[in-house]
Amino acid sequence: MEPTTRVLFDLFLMFAAAKVLGEICERLRIPAVLGEVLAGVLIGPYALGWIQPGELHANVALVGIVFLLFAIGLETNPREMFRVGGVASLVAPLGAALPLLGGFLLMAWTRHPSLEAIFVGAALVETSVGITARMLSDLGVISERAGRVILAAAVIDDVIALLVLAVVSSLAKGSLDWIRVGILSAEAIAFVGLAAFFGRKAVARLRGPATWMRTRNPGFALALLLCLGLSVAATYVGMAAIIGSFLAGLALAEKKEEWGLEERTEGVKEFLAPFFFVVLGMKLDLGVFTQPGVLGLALVLTLVAVLGKLLGCGLGALSLGFKDALRVGAGMIPRGEVCMIVALLGLQAGVLSPGVYGMLLFVVVVTTVASPFALMGLFRKTNRAIAV
Amino acid sequence: MEPTTRVLFDLFLMFAAAKVLGEICERLRIPAVLGEVLAGVLIGPYALGWIQPGELHANVALVGIVFLLFAIGLETNPREMFRVGGVASLVAPLGAALPLLGGFLLMAWTRHPSLEAIFVGAALVETSVGITARMLSDLGVISERAGRVILAAAVIDDVIALLVLAVVSSLAKGSLDWIRVGILSAEAIAFVGLAAFFGRKAVARLRGPATWMRTRNPGFALALLLCLGLSVAATYVGMAAIIGSFLAGLALAEKKEEWGLEERTEGVKEFLAPFFFVVLGMKLDLGVFTQPGVLGLALVLTLVAVLGKLLGCGLGALSLGFKDALRVGAGMIPRGEVCMIVALLGLQAGVLSPGVYGMLLFVVVVTTVASPFALMGLFRKTNRAIAV
Repeated sequence: MEPTTRVLFDLFLMFAAAKVLGEICERLRIPAVLGEVLAGVLIGPYALGWIQPGELHANVALVGIVFLLFAIGLETNPREMFRVGGVASLVAPLGAALPLLGGFLLMAWTRHPSLEAIFVGAALVETSVGITARMLSDLGVISERAGRVILAAAVIDDVIALLVLAVVSSLAKGSLDWIRVGILSAEAIAFVGLAAFFGRKAVARLRGPATWMRTRNPGFALALLLCLGLSVAATYVGMAAIIGSFLAGLALAEKKEEWGLEERTEGVKEFLAPFFFVVLGMKLDLGVFTQPGVLGLALVLTLVAVLGKLLGCGLGALSLGFKDALRVGAGMIPRGEVCMIVALLGLQAGVLSPGVYGMLLFVVVVTTVASPFALMGLFRKTNRAIAV
Repeated sequence: MEPTTRVLFDLFLMFAAAKVLGEICERLRIPAVLGEVLAGVLIGPYALGWIQPGELHANVALVGIVFLLFAIGLETNPREMFRVGGVASLVAPLGAALPLLGGFLLMAWTRHPSLEAIFVGAALVETSVGITARMLSDLGVISERAGRVILAAAVIDDVIALLVLAVVSSLAKGSLDWIRVGILSAEAIAFVGLAAFFGRKAVARLRGPATWMRTRNPGFALALLLCLGLSVAATYVGMAAIIGSFLAGLALAEKKEEWGLEERTEGVKEFLAPFFFVVLGMKLDLGVFTQPGVLGLALVLTLVAVLGKLLGCGLGALSLGFKDALRVGAGMIPRGEVCMIVALLGLQAGVLSPGVYGMLLFVVVVTTVASPFALMGLFRKTNRAIAV
């Protein structure tokens, strides 16, 4: 196949598989995002082998997740987001600490080396903002109080996860560089603060782009620049790109009608976001689970990952009442990109065995598959109660 | 720089440069597309060297041009397109034959090998649908009679150019395979016919996707599938992917309001299309023109390329009257992707010298830069006359 044909064929196949399995999931009342992940597992190298993931797939997945978070930021009401900031800043650290501790203790108890145990704990810290946001958006509860707390906490949690990542990657090199950790922490906090508060104010003061730009759809052009620009800035200070694009969306949320951003952003998101979830699915190798002991430990590790978030985040959100605390705990369960990054780093540094690497991917998939069901049940009950 | 940062940084830099120089061009009343090409020249490896084009840049440019043609197809009224099909099918072959002959004779006369001369002639055949469509769209004359003829002829012309490409690539391998040429011709004609006539009818008979699909924005999802699917199909039968996406847009043109395609497609197009033009600019090496004789011959070759299309296409469109024939001739001048593909192929096969390769890129850039000015003048005059 010629390179051009190959590129377009892969994009077509990934998108078609995502849409077909997404449609089937929707009919089974399962969030479409799971169909998209399943599509990736199916067509990926470990099942049918129709696609060998490479640079193209990684890049389109990256741009897809960046735009998904931009669109989610755009849908978020910043005022309400800040209103739940207090609860979220209690939910996130508790929900990070418990899985970290739980993962470490389980692995240490099953006689894995200390460094491997620390890596596993670190991998469990993150809540996947992308999957969480998509689930909440699919369920239509992103603007409910619990939904806003989950999203705000997931963003804070991502920062914590990346700080933990910085620590364990120092550990893998043999020494714990506290100065680097300190600088990175300061940068991350300064970045989020600046982008969230001043970005919004700067955008609010800007005159309508149509009055001073000749480019067609100037508002959308500026929005794309801000989205890409803040994503780059986020990676420069050592954070995930999606933190930047989410903050860009948040800064523009109050201008989305005036600047004509809603449907155009939705167009880009609906084209590109499915690729992220398909690529996520393509990375799952089902073969490792035939190794003795791997599947059993993977199941226990998943339980630790689930209970760690459920208890930790639930405790943090107890001030919202039991029902919403349960929802927040369940909403924080899914792991994603950062978990996979930590796992890959550990594997490459020789700290993690291939079996433990497989277990961490297992946790990502199971928590991603299970949480939407839990969330659906938890959110639907009250929605029905309200409807009645 | 980390790979993720590098990818997002390159996309940001390309998009920002495109928008800044596009804005400057708009203010100088030059189509923004030229600013985008200039942005590529500036930041590319032969000037500032801020970006080294690789797989990422080629892929994003490919998807960008595919979506640009899809959006253009969507804007085109298929009924009116078929109405001008007769004139266009006279314009295209004449506009292909003259530059082919002119290019060959010029190179043969200046004592270049026959095979090199044939390659140069073949490279001049194509009219760039992408650049032409963008120019017409920027000028707002895509629905005028001359605009529709140009677009229809450019599409036919692309088919001819690709047939010629098939012939010369056989020549480069030492033998002229007439059976292959025959099969390819039949496939191309069948593909365009099927997609243009039956695709439209099939879409017209389809019930609204919202009535039988649960996926969100089902119309847009189907449109993306058709766009990617026909692009892949086009490359399978040996044609440019953009022919497929253009035909997909054409098939959906009458459903664009019902299916909610307009703004969403515009969003994808406005994000991705600029990358194509930036990458086009990045490929220009200004260094080759310091070689003795290259610049002079490049200028004469450009003159041949311009006059070939102006006379050939103008003659073909003479039935529309002198003014519209001149517009059609001028609108068909810009060369683009296929010209560059032929040039690259010739270089790689050792048929073209680096100097002649540079000349062909020179033709692409100069015809792209000059045509919008010519077109602006030619279309503006009557628009003013009508306004008066």
